[in-house]
Amino acid sequence: MSRRRGRGAGPPPSRAVDYHNLRNPFPPMAVFPEDRIAAMHDTALRTLEELGMRVLLREAVEIFRRAGARVVEDMVFIGRDMVAAAIATAPTSITGRAGRRAKDVTLELGSLVFQPGAGAPHATDLKRGRRPGSARDYREYTTLAHHFDVFQMMSPSVEPQDVPPHLRHYFTTEAQLTLTDKFPFIFARGTPQVTECFEMMRDFRGVSDAEFAAHPHTYTIINTNSPRTLDVPMAQGLIDFAKAGQLSIVTPFTLMGAMAPITVAGAITLSHAEALAAITLTQLTRPGAPVCYGTFTSNVDMKSGAPAFGTPGHFQASLAAGQLARHIGLPWRSAAGSASNLNDVQAANENQMGLWGCLMAGATVVIHSAGWLEGGLSVSYEKIVTDCEVLNMVAELCAGAQAGEDEIGYDSALSAVDPSGHFFAAPQTMDRYNTEFYEPIVHDYANFGTWTERGARDASARATDVWQAILDADVRPAVDHARLGALHDYIARRTEAGGAPPES
Amino acid sequence: MSRRRGRGAGPPPSRAVDYHNLRNPFPPMAVFPEDRIAAMHDTALRTLEELGMRVLLREAVEIFRRAGARVVEDMVFIGRDMVAAAIATAPTSITGRAGRRAKDVTLELGSLVFQPGAGAPHATDLKRGRRPGSARDYREYTTLAHHFDVFQMMSPSVEPQDVPPHLRHYFTTEAQLTLTDKFPFIFARGTPQVTECFEMMRDFRGVSDAEFAAHPHTYTIINTNSPRTLDVPMAQGLIDFAKAGQLSIVTPFTLMGAMAPITVAGAITLSHAEALAAITLTQLTRPGAPVCYGTFTSNVDMKSGAPAFGTPGHFQASLAAGQLARHIGLPWRSAAGSASNLNDVQAANENQMGLWGCLMAGATVVIHSAGWLEGGLSVSYEKIVTDCEVLNMVAELCAGAQAGEDEIGYDSALSAVDPSGHFFAAPQTMDRYNTEFYEPIVHDYANFGTWTERGARDASARATDVWQAILDADVRPAVDHARLGALHDYIARRTEAGGAPPES
Repeated sequence: MSRRRGRGAGPPPSRAVDYHNLRNPFPPMAVFPEDRIAAMHDTALRTLEELGMRVLLREAVEIFRRAGARVVEDMVFIGRDMVAAAIATAPTSITGRAGRRAKDVTLELGSLVFQPGAGAPHATDLKRGRRPGSARDYREYTTLAHHFDVFQMMSPSVEPQDVPPHLRHYFTTEAQLTLTDKFPFIFARGTPQVTECFEMMRDFRGVSDAEFAAHPHTYTIINTNSPRTLDVPMAQGLIDFAKAGQLSIVTPFTLMGAMAPITVAGAITLSHAEALAAITLTQLTRPGAPVCYGTFTSNVDMKSGAPAFGTPGHFQASLAAGQLARHIGLPWRSAAGSASNLNDVQAANENQMGLWGCLMAGATVVIHSAGWLEGGLSVSYEKIVTDCEVLNMVAELCAGAQAGEDEIGYDSALSAVDPSGHFFAAPQTMDRYNTEFYEPIVHDYANFGTWTERGARDASARATDVWQAILDADVRPAVDHARLGALHDYIARRTEAGGAPPES
Repeated sequence: MSRRRGRGAGPPPSRAVDYHNLRNPFPPMAVFPEDRIAAMHDTALRTLEELGMRVLLREAVEIFRRAGARVVEDMVFIGRDMVAAAIATAPTSITGRAGRRAKDVTLELGSLVFQPGAGAPHATDLKRGRRPGSARDYREYTTLAHHFDVFQMMSPSVEPQDVPPHLRHYFTTEAQLTLTDKFPFIFARGTPQVTECFEMMRDFRGVSDAEFAAHPHTYTIINTNSPRTLDVPMAQGLIDFAKAGQLSIVTPFTLMGAMAPITVAGAITLSHAEALAAITLTQLTRPGAPVCYGTFTSNVDMKSGAPAFGTPGHFQASLAAGQLARHIGLPWRSAAGSASNLNDVQAANENQMGLWGCLMAGATVVIHSAGWLEGGLSVSYEKIVTDCEVLNMVAELCAGAQAGEDEIGYDSALSAVDPSGHFFAAPQTMDRYNTEFYEPIVHDYANFGTWTERGARDASARATDVWQAILDADVRPAVDHARLGALHDYIARRTEAGGAPPES
């Protein structure tokens, strides 16, 4: 298709690439032969049958027992038939309902969804330094995540530590509903908080109970306590979200050599067993409940015991998990991230290495794809911007390229320029110069002299300008003011009534 | 295979991974359907037949003419039969002879070879700043390239501008023969210099004329002058290296939107045509002469005209070139690199993005895989180190992982640890803790407190320590002192006789 345009006939076309509905174009990579993946799956089933899962929530133990599992105190021994039935009823495609249908997000094998770094107790930026996460940080982070189209869903973000724990879920839900229209997140911190969050979201979205139950309007992330333990709030979250038809993303967080076996094969087998146990609990609670398989497995540094990310082991663990996800046919999440203490070259290299592991593993959801430092202890505003540059470029690769006759351009380019000439004025160039290339948000192509004259500012310094401009612009989705008033009334009433403390 | 070992029975095993003989484990990615690749190939042949190549060296024009090409002044019109014959005689596997057989390097589809950043007029580091490349820089750079096993061949490196041009080839050859035993590089700057370099290398390696001619003992890189021009020293280099049985790596350097069409398909079609013309010249000179296909294509920033690297266009251009290389069945080189002006997050992200393009394109040789800044106007010592961390991790991925019963570890790990326990003392961990994980050269996993106490140094600052330690250690290969003396005598005689000026 030619994009030829008349000169002076209106503004030039601008580049428009859909960063929201991405399909993974990268060929999936295997780290192990298929028979070894089958052996790992079989060993995970054996682990659940013979070694069992420790389940700290009595209600969850009873669900397993009623379904026929052998139970000895808090140990649950889950048979492979029960797991196979759960895999059979778990949906293979899940569409999360956002504030606008255009922002709905579909999770299935082949789709590609990014989240910014999540769950950090601290925030950091070059203007204000590293500090415990605050309400201001949470709202700013939400605005940054809203700004970049390549983040298709919200993440657990940064912890607003200055908001009392029994009121924090009101604050985070209000922020996610008013500052963005992307698919929102809820922490599974006990039934009272979760139920209130469901109510706020249902009413603010203006949907009926039935419609809310029919489509996930929010999601949580479930971390097992490796090895082989499902704690009270996590088990409760799996049950509560499944009952309500809302989405759980199950993610054992397994560090090879510490809380998981030292080998990729061993750690991913453990992670797989734990994920299957959690998925089984959701399907026993409500067959067909939306649940996403997942893993987050990297290695520790064996000298210090410190977690490492973006390592060869992390990369291979993502590949193995992807093979197991395809083995059971479910959408799944993986994670990038960095262990670095600031947004430096290490942070960039680790995050991108972990990202390519996820991409080549065919991950449906990539969490911590931007901004995550210190193995998750802080999120960096500058790193959100610089990592987003990489994610945008990956999104551009998802869009692909064409090689039709117009693009090969024998007439419009190749034969239009003499030897040693230039293509600046070739017809093909004139047609496309405004739309052909990705325009960076923070990368700078100025030469050394110009760059020096402009202050010799590195990418992190320039990223500061970018996030400050985004926060200054403060672009928010349109909201229904009646529903906003009702939301604020609800929060005021519940706050007055004492809020809802987290459970553990 | 169990690596169980007796306690106290000698030193613990250390991790040993072969970084020299790498095979690319990443599934090749296609950017265009096969029929479009065939169309691009066909358009490249049509370009050579109908539009022709401008060839500035009369000897080269005569070679083409004698083979049947139509010639009009300096324009050579190359028929597709002649190209097909060249592709048929070009070797599909080439082994470059290094100073030791263990350092020989094999170039074929499937092998993976890295070179540090090359051809830079400037060097830069955090201790001494940015400066014109010097003899000292050239020697230091050679030592750094020698140190890291993951660089399997030498590169054009940094230009020693303080060495007179008519003596520079003595200096660079002496440095490459004495400071490293890796496969060395020669600039094609005219027959006199090239012939002398061949002599120095043949004699220092202690091989006969016949043995030298039978195996490439050195190589050059041939850049066409896009569009469609082959200048005097490049054409001469192709002829001289082919006659001598030495290796040419043919690399049109095509910037989309400037010296090449603005589209990936157009630019790579032009690059392909130029590479085929150069390959044809080598095979007309000497059928079977070692030659490597190549491309280096990225886009300019259309606002400023400045070159950009590590962009989506760069990535896709590598993919397209890889498809064309497989289409004609020849080993090929591609390139990573960065446009950034210092070793910052942009530099890291650009280089790694470009690298993944090369890896997924199945490139045999990845040039500029470390250290390249400013689009090649400088090389950074710190960036060599930080990029090398990434290359090492890629080499680790090439080694793969196992998922045998020992690695899955039902007995030695999974069943040996209770729920909520840890694997630090599991038998599997005890067997492997010293050898399981890659140990970084510059990445730091210390937590924020410890890292702050140690001076809060970023990756570039730590990389300074690394390169300084390598230069201080000054590890060199053993040399034959008689041959070294002869080399120095040769250089003294030739210098006395006036050296050999470069030709252009």
